Amino acid sequence: MQEQLSVKHLLGIKDLTPGDIELIFETADEFKDVINRPIKKVPSLRDVTVANVFFENSTRTKLSFELAEKRLSADIVNFSSSNSSVKKGETLLDTVNNILSMKVDMIVMRHASPGAPHFLSKHISANIVNAGDGTHEHPTQALLDTFSIRQRLGGVAGKKVAIIGDILHSRVALSNIFALQKLGAEVMVCGPITLLPKHIASLGVKVELNVRKALEWCDVANVLRIQLERQQIKYFPSLREYSLYYGINKKLLDSLNKEIVIMHPGPINRGVELSSDVADSDHAIILDQVENGVAIRMAVLYLLASLSKN
Amino acid sequence: MQEQLSVKHLLGIKDLTPGDIELIFETADEFKDVINRPIKKVPSLRDVTVANVFFENSTRTKLSFELAEKRLSADIVNFSSSNSSVKKGETLLDTVNNILSMKVDMIVMRHASPGAPHFLSKHISANIVNAGDGTHEHPTQALLDTFSIRQRLGGVAGKKVAIIGDILHSRVALSNIFALQKLGAEVMVCGPITLLPKHIASLGVKVELNVRKALEWCDVANVLRIQLERQQIKYFPSLREYSLYYGINKKLLDSLNKEIVIMHPGPINRGVELSSDVADSDHAIILDQVENGVAIRMAVLYLLASLSKN
Amino acid sequence: MQEQLSVKHLLGIKDLTPGDIELIFETADEFKDVINRPIKKVPSLRDVTVANVFFENSTRTKLSFELAEKRLSADIVNFSSSNSSVKKGETLLDTVNNILSMKVDMIVMRHASPGAPHFLSKHISANIVNAGDGTHEHPTQALLDTFSIRQRLGGVAGKKVAIIGDILHSRVALSNIFALQKLGAEVMVCGPITLLPKHIASLGVKVELNVRKALEWCDVANVLRIQLERQQIKYFPSLREYSLYYGINKKLLDSLNKEIVIMHPGPINRGVELSSDVADSDHAIILDQVENGVAIRMAVLYLLASLSKN
Repeated sequence: MQEQLSVKHLLGIKDLTPGDIELIFETADEFKDVINRPIKKVPSLRDVTVANVFFENSTRTKLSFELAEKRLSADIVNFSSSNSSVKKGETLLDTVNNILSMKVDMIVMRHASPGAPHFLSKHISANIVNAGDGTHEHPTQALLDTFSIRQRLGGVAGKKVAIIGDILHSRVALSNIFALQKLGAEVMVCGPITLLPKHIASLGVKVELNVRKALEWCDVANVLRIQLERQQIKYFPSLREYSLYYGINKKLLDSLNKEIVIMHPGPINRGVELSSDVADSDHAIILDQVENGVAIRMAVLYLLASLSKN
Repeated sequence: MQEQLSVKHLLGIKDLTPGDIELIFETADEFKDVINRPIKKVPSLRDVTVANVFFENSTRTKLSFELAEKRLSADIVNFSSSNSSVKKGETLLDTVNNILSMKVDMIVMRHASPGAPHFLSKHISANIVNAGDGTHEHPTQALLDTFSIRQRLGGVAGKKVAIIGDILHSRVALSNIFALQKLGAEVMVCGPITLLPKHIASLGVKVELNVRKALEWCDVANVLRIQLERQQIKYFPSLREYSLYYGINKKLLDSLNKEIVIMHPGPINRGVELSSDVADSDHAIILDQVENGVAIRMAVLYLLASLSKN
Repeated sequence: MQEQLSVKHLLGIKDLTPGDIELIFETADEFKDVINRPIKKVPSLRDVTVANVFFENSTRTKLSFELAEKRLSADIVNFSSSNSSVKKGETLLDTVNNILSMKVDMIVMRHASPGAPHFLSKHISANIVNAGDGTHEHPTQALLDTFSIRQRLGGVAGKKVAIIGDILHSRVALSNIFALQKLGAEVMVCGPITLLPKHIASLGVKVELNVRKALEWCDVANVLRIQLERQQIKYFPSLREYSLYYGINKKLLDSLNKEIVIMHPGPINRGVELSSDVADSDHAIILDQVENGVAIRMAVLYLLASLSKN
């Protein structure tokens, strides 16, 4: 096994080697043991200060990173744009350089602009973890998703994974496609034509408009959230239409005569993309994904920090 | 003395036995010693992660819980609805299950809907502390109030306590009535008829519209805040009328020829329900209530956590 | 050297003796060593609880204080007015007394009203650090500014410092004037006549309207931010005019044939008060100021806390 990451920052899955991903998974395995012990902490990052710099609201991702940092005994500072100099016209680089001048070692950043962490990484020496850049990448989500598939099915290679829903506005979709392909899975995307990027097939994924056919094909369905707050397209199906044509319920699943693992990055719109009898069934590993998220983020932070020490 | 709580959650005073309350008080006595030492901390909850989940704004209650958790060396994560998935249409149970999947052990929750923590308690295994559910209960406030009476007067049994003000919109009033009755105090409520719940007498309390008569009767006056932000009743007395007929000032107190303990849950509207010469007098134990709040919350968290270990 | 501060609170530079400032500087020297070590922490304030009470938004100042407190191992609680009782009509003194009743030892406070921390200091026993009171003082900023000059030039006495920009609305300017004079520097203020306080010359500073002349005179230029959010003056120069007549760029600096140290309290409006080729040049010590801010704040908190113990 590889001993350290080949990258200094986690900007996107695109930059990782399969060996990097494997290393993160095996490190996360160990941290999963840690967070399931009575004492859920290790002193690994006692001498590391992490700034969570969120220029966009986030609940679960931020909470998950914060808990990962606490479990690693890091010092944590939180910075969010709602009460920040950003409103006063400061540049992103100035904001981050200011934070770093206070002797911060790592930056976990969410930003509305695709490429913002990549831009930063060219100008600063601290490790950056991309916690979502616009509709571009969300690498830790894809890592926890594939880690959860590996946990449930014993591996990722050769598995058929359908990503279903709003592919166009989803950073989760893009990062998942990269991660799944690097690990040898077959990937299909499925959704209304208005929610699929035009050149998506060029990424080497199957494209399917019919959700039943997607489900008939796949071992795992990663069902994305309809992000109403991102959509400005007039001819988008209404929520009711979406639910009618793409919503997944128990009746549909039962009619397939096969077992499918159901994933969802949350928050769920119950009754829209998933019915409650699916979301709460044994097929769903949605809460496992959340649990694994903390272990994956611990692994990423730990591996990047140990890189800096060498 | 009882050795552990009879309940797994602190949802309301209604569910507690007098023995439970006594156990909380005696535990709080010990923690009061702790927080008055130079080193104000104990390692009791070192292996416990507490999430403060506030779906409504709060200052003093949240700060008091946070300090209680810090004094117990718990790991703390804060979740508030203003930057949350709740806005994205997630259900309460999904939100909390997500937090719990990150290996959180206890939930301190404030919610605008009466019964929200009770609903949750039927679906999750973590301990829940109700930090206020709408106009229903606010159990830690009632515990710190009765603890403060016990501290000032040597006991609660047999004491006459008048709760004065907006009883209708107050979770503090209801929890206090339950706590005082369980501990053997006599309770009176006093306020304008428009601010008294219709069937309040059925709770076994005296009802009095005249504040002078209430003060003549009682040993302790727990003066509630006029919560303008909750009132939508047109015929409610104006602030000026309220202050004129129900405001308590030194002149009124002096005219009674007796000593009354003055309490207030804060924040005070000086000049409305209490004049400054009363709020700042020796009769007032308002800041003692605040200090006791930290000790009471430490006791509650500690007792619930030790329950989980058994 | 003086062994302890002559003041119990840091309300403003005006109250400090030169010996106080020197003591803070020498203490900060030691803490600078601490924060540049791999383990950036000392246990000095392990038994101290600090409340950061911010009634106005702040990013860098609050972050800097929080990091200073963490480096000193203090317990920290954050209170901001946006989610507070202040909106419910509570007085400043009641709010702070409530916080203090929870056994908080020190208050770091930012408030929009000049004199708010001075008012408080007359009524409470906890140490107060003024983190900015309206347009009045911002003492830790002036301390870190003069500390940065001392670091760059080997001392402050005899140096010529020009404070350039919006002097009228700046708490940074006033605190810097006091600090520089106490340490024996010569001070000039420079800006458009509409942004200079009427009686500024009575403070014993030179006044200059022409920025080139100010730069020809000084060793150090402390360039303030144009705080658009504070200005309500109609005849104020537009941003474009300001930049044209007062903006400092490399061409202007090169034409002077001398070395000037460039300072800025941030956040920078690049292209307005400073061009990027100046802000990013070796003459600029802007990020040193940020780094020194943490050490200075550690020193202030440490010295005030050790005072309380005696």
